[in-house]
Amino acid sequence: MHLILNHMVQYSRRLDDSFGALADPTRRGILTRLGRGDAAISELADEFDMTLTGIKKHVRVLEAAGLVVTRKIGRVRQCRLGSQRLDDETAWIAEYRRMLESRLDSLGEFLERTREEQ
Amino acid sequence: MHLILNHMVQYSRRLDDSFGALADPTRRGILTRLGRGDAAISELADEFDMTLTGIKKHVRVLEAAGLVVTRKIGRVRQCRLGSQRLDDETAWIAEYRRMLESRLDSLGEFLERTREEQ
Repeated sequence: MHLILNHMVQYSRRLDDSFGALADPTRRGILTRLGRGDAAISELADEFDMTLTGIKKHVRVLEAAGLVVTRKIGRVRQCRLGSQRLDDETAWIAEYRRMLESRLDSLGEFLERTREEQ
Repeated sequence: MHLILNHMVQYSRRLDDSFGALADPTRRGILTRLGRGDAAISELADEFDMTLTGIKKHVRVLEAAGLVVTRKIGRVRQCRLGSQRLDDETAWIAEYRRMLESRLDSLGEFLERTREEQ
């Protein structure tokens, strides 16, 4: 029981981290940029017209969510996409959409019945 | 051109709002709860063992993202799921997964070539 609870808490924290990481246009931009190829922090700062400190903050959030991996090569910190495939996030949203659909269906049936009764 | 930019900014703000709304366990819990049926703010406060003020804050974030709609009936504020189907969010994540896959593919090919060359 404790193990299951622990697993659920970790699952929930991962969703917090990843949805939180995606809730910012610069962070989504960095992910799209890294999809075209790896980049140093300084390159990202240039391309997004941000200070090194600003970019580093965003990269740290992406790193905590497993979306980006960084590696120091000499004096340069290189960024690449992590292995987080957003499987759980995809599943959560798909489940939400199914639930919403069934809510709308029952609302539709209710309206239908109400109309027939009139 | 201005129209397109405007559209892109609005699209981006919607993603900020919805991903931000999903980045919290209580807010995801409220959505799942409303999937089973509408509820008053006070019922949600009871079920999530939170103050009315705390629940109202979360509901406001969900409302801003279009995920929840509230309606005042007498003295009770009733909550139900909104019509936000998370289409753009689903598309964004799907595109990210495609991109990540193709990055992993090219990394795999690179490693393959390096091995053949040895």
